[in-house]
Amino acid sequence: MMGPFHEMFLDELRDMYDAEQQLIEALPKMAKAASDPDLQQAFNSHLEQTRGHFQRLESAFESLGEKGKGNKCEAMKGLVKEGGEIIDKKGDMADAAVDAGLIAAAQKVEHYEIASYGTLATWSRMMGHDEVTALLEATLAEEKAADETLNALAQNGINEHAMAATES
Amino acid sequence: MMGPFHEMFLDELRDMYDAEQQLIEALPKMAKAASDPDLQQAFNSHLEQTRGHFQRLESAFESLGEKGKGNKCEAMKGLVKEGGEIIDKKGDMADAAVDAGLIAAAQKVEHYEIASYGTLATWSRMMGHDEVTALLEATLAEEKAADETLNALAQNGINEHAMAATES
Repeated sequence: MMGPFHEMFLDELRDMYDAEQQLIEALPKMAKAASDPDLQQAFNSHLEQTRGHFQRLESAFESLGEKGKGNKCEAMKGLVKEGGEIIDKKGDMADAAVDAGLIAAAQKVEHYEIASYGTLATWSRMMGHDEVTALLEATLAEEKAADETLNALAQNGINEHAMAATES
Repeated sequence: MMGPFHEMFLDELRDMYDAEQQLIEALPKMAKAASDPDLQQAFNSHLEQTRGHFQRLESAFESLGEKGKGNKCEAMKGLVKEGGEIIDKKGDMADAAVDAGLIAAAQKVEHYEIASYGTLATWSRMMGHDEVTALLEATLAEEKAADETLNALAQNGINEHAMAATES
């Protein structure tokens, strides 16, 4: 019998299923707006990872005997919109400042996903869905690593360049 | 002279100024929807803290010689909407499962704020705004502590109760 907690777990999975799809559409735009080649590459390689996260959710639904389905993820919609606001500054603002803003926007996305996958992995473990737990934990580790990569890029030059920038 | 990076910093501050205001409206609804008395209290005491975070942003703007002003924070709008979706399950779903969902929603909010204040504090430190940096770091520490409190509540009973719940 499916209890209400299992139902909530599926709802959260469907949320992330939609969130990852939104991100797969947004990341190429962020990569295109980035000027720093390392940042561009970070967005492109995170896009590849994100496609993998989406596949893992497909596998999780399959393992649970459910069809992969998305719920409109309102939070990711807002996060992507905020990234779009930074992209829109391109041309009007120095490239290095835009890059710093893109990192900030991407780190918000990563933190959102860290919170979501953290909850999902905990719930899945409690429910004894071992296969699903392993999938969720693999993605969680990659989201944390992506956040660290962005931190390192910010600290190793991009923030300094942004501060030095005085014209658009 | 105000450079583009400073402008981006002010934009991010204005984002959080609006985000904290949205949260001040949302937290009483989350407290009301919570059934576990400890969770209720956690939301209420975080509401008090959130009022303090808003005040700190007022002080930060003042210290920068700016007027406190908000930009519509689209991400927080989405996060609050997601919390509302959990609140709407109340009555149709077991109270304990709703509590687990409220914690998940609140942790997403905390992580959003941790990412935002983390970026703001780093930028502020780089720009040499010592007074503002101290304000931002104080809030950042409280957001991290709030996330830990929610983790502890989930692990010390609420998730177990949610799993045991079989009826609404």
